[in-house]
Amino acid sequence: MEWTPLPQSDHAANTVNPIRRIADAVSVAPNPEKPVIKLHLGDPSLSRRLPPSTVAVEALHESINSHRHDGYGPAVGELAAREAVARRFTHPASPITAEDVILASGCSHALQMAIEGIANPGDNILIPQPGFPLYSTLCKPHGIEVANLNVANTFLSVDRGYMLDMKNGGLINLEHLETLIDERTRALIVNNPGNPTGVVFPRQHLEEILEFASRYRLVVIADEIYGDLTYDGAVFYPLATLSPKVPIITCDGIAKRWMVPGWRLGWLIVHDRFHVLSEVRKGLVALSQKIVGPCSLVQGALPKILADTPDEYFEHNKLVISKNASIVSKVLKGLAGVHCLKPHGAMYMMISIDKNVYGDDIQFASNLIKEESVFCLPGSAFSAPGWIRLVITQSEDITKEAAYRIREFCGRRQSTFVEITESSDEGCDISNSESD
Amino acid sequence: MEWTPLPQSDHAANTVNPIRRIADAVSVAPNPEKPVIKLHLGDPSLSRRLPPSTVAVEALHESINSHRHDGYGPAVGELAAREAVARRFTHPASPITAEDVILASGCSHALQMAIEGIANPGDNILIPQPGFPLYSTLCKPHGIEVANLNVANTFLSVDRGYMLDMKNGGLINLEHLETLIDERTRALIVNNPGNPTGVVFPRQHLEEILEFASRYRLVVIADEIYGDLTYDGAVFYPLATLSPKVPIITCDGIAKRWMVPGWRLGWLIVHDRFHVLSEVRKGLVALSQKIVGPCSLVQGALPKILADTPDEYFEHNKLVISKNASIVSKVLKGLAGVHCLKPHGAMYMMISIDKNVYGDDIQFASNLIKEESVFCLPGSAFSAPGWIRLVITQSEDITKEAAYRIREFCGRRQSTFVEITESSDEGCDISNSESD
Repeated sequence: MEWTPLPQSDHAANTVNPIRRIADAVSVAPNPEKPVIKLHLGDPSLSRRLPPSTVAVEALHESINSHRHDGYGPAVGELAAREAVARRFTHPASPITAEDVILASGCSHALQMAIEGIANPGDNILIPQPGFPLYSTLCKPHGIEVANLNVANTFLSVDRGYMLDMKNGGLINLEHLETLIDERTRALIVNNPGNPTGVVFPRQHLEEILEFASRYRLVVIADEIYGDLTYDGAVFYPLATLSPKVPIITCDGIAKRWMVPGWRLGWLIVHDRFHVLSEVRKGLVALSQKIVGPCSLVQGALPKILADTPDEYFEHNKLVISKNASIVSKVLKGLAGVHCLKPHGAMYMMISIDKNVYGDDIQFASNLIKEESVFCLPGSAFSAPGWIRLVITQSEDITKEAAYRIREFCGRRQSTFVEITESSDEGCDISNSESD
Repeated sequence: MEWTPLPQSDHAANTVNPIRRIADAVSVAPNPEKPVIKLHLGDPSLSRRLPPSTVAVEALHESINSHRHDGYGPAVGELAAREAVARRFTHPASPITAEDVILASGCSHALQMAIEGIANPGDNILIPQPGFPLYSTLCKPHGIEVANLNVANTFLSVDRGYMLDMKNGGLINLEHLETLIDERTRALIVNNPGNPTGVVFPRQHLEEILEFASRYRLVVIADEIYGDLTYDGAVFYPLATLSPKVPIITCDGIAKRWMVPGWRLGWLIVHDRFHVLSEVRKGLVALSQKIVGPCSLVQGALPKILADTPDEYFEHNKLVISKNASIVSKVLKGLAGVHCLKPHGAMYMMISIDKNVYGDDIQFASNLIKEESVFCLPGSAFSAPGWIRLVITQSEDITKEAAYRIREFCGRRQSTFVEITESSDEGCDISNSESD
């Protein structure tokens, strides 16, 4: 008797990260004559331009040396760490305590627990389109409807994806959203500030979303990992602090504002205004027991990280990202068939590209690597074909170099190309640019 | 329209950790006149008697200061960390490379990926009984058959649990195992050294197990988290190094030999001798993408931890545990209806208790807390009713004190009790005991 190959489980086979497939599609060799510039990974640590704060580093050294965090904590997280989250995020309009907080191994794990805790096979969860692909990656293996992966076209066709009006500021198209709801709809995921859009929802829009969720009695999973990482006048409102009130499970972590995505420390906050989430809360506690919480050393450091990181740290980070957004916008201005959606939050910039001039977004991204050694992700990875996403956390010099290469790349492809001279950079403050 | 309570998902509702229910059952107040001694949690860091090595602590400080591990690594783990695992665990009889290693957020997460990657609803996985309850916790929410939780009796009745012959050295009863196999059996979990048993399978028994797995073409999930933490002459043989060869997924981590369970760093090693796990391997990679790997700082420290921790560190730890086992055995010797299964590996000691004298194991454990302030877990938490499990990682003084309290506790309950004097401790080397 021979050994016969063992199939993977359906669960594993249905765990699909579309970014991987897209990355394969654009897997070409860069131009050997140009140094590589990587603007495709949403990891602020890569550029070394946005390092963790000294407070976070100190807190971690102290946590190690205390030897109070070598062992298991409770699966939901150490009390002191959960109290620190509650202190930082409680608000008169939505008071919380440590009891409402469950720690996770990164915001991804928090989202996983929220999704797995709330929906059954055949249920559905409404997710943004364009949006972070992990939502569908986490839903699909459980038979929770969100997405219909269209392999032939290599981009994501999302059945339960609600449209963000990308031509109109990237807000949620509530009319379209309404058409998706049925009796099996279990939750609405709202990501603000948005990845990949960089859009920050204004207060009024958030209130409309809540009004909508209240009308349809929808629990909201609020992915606020980019939280108050906003700039150029945009203000972040935590969804749970606004009216009308609805039950909200907020998912967050230290990855994207404290700039340590590798440390894998996230959390869920359960805002259960109408006492309808008692069972779900029990389920979340049970789910947290599967892998027994995030790294205890980082848990030990969390109270200091959340309490003591100075405002200047956050202001600096916002300034770097905001300046980079301005640089790219200005350098690409005037190119036919290219339109930048200037971000006001998160660390990304979406650029729409005219298919007739440049081909589709996957062709654009792969040719850009081949000719200019600039890496970006095609919008198809985020259910946004026709767009590309740039990460804008590099130094100004590198960002400017990348933008100029993109401009040249586009210039070679358009008949209507008008030479843009250095003088068109006027007003773009890149005088104090640094090299990394 | 009112908000109506939202049910938790079936997945969450079926995520049941029996230890929690058992812990509730023995949740009584300790005797206020006696200081509490906690021998119920398998966490060596609690006693501070078995701290992490200085190498591990240094490695982590260095990892932080390098700022090369603040960002995301690959979801399967950083290459250097996977190479370190491969270097440490490769063997001429089962050579491995970094390609065969996937890092996990603790061994629990490694087990989760192995189980989720291999079995579908309605399939079954064979698990040891007595055994670590997480196996069933991880299987049940996916509809993978292992266990039938019997709520009324508060202990676990495991349908697919194969018997360890506790009256006969704790080896696997292969005849019983054979009766459990059917066409839906996907894997056999072998835990060696065993939790809660402390049993180390001799080489011949491991070869019998492999012979069995080979005959039935069973993939083995080898939980070797206690690895070479063996003592008193017992030798640990990694299952993958023995013959006959079968496909093996080894799950392990730094929790229990490097004594840092809270750091949450584990791994899977895929030993695919007959190229039957190619699909499963893809599935494991996909599953690792859900929460994007363990804490990157610990990944950064792993090469040094695995390469440079001195032998003396491990020898010291083994000696502490071995001495504690001797202490408990000797102090409880001669008590009617009490029998210690002396461990040769891991950090636990199983003690069988006669129901006619002491009541069931839950009554025993809860009365022991009430009267003697000694915490242990009833065997029912591990599908071993009639036994209790002691953790033996405390200082010798504390362990001795606990053993004496257990002896007094038992003495009060047995008519046949023979007073054991201090002199019966002769030969038990506790002269150099330390206090913590």
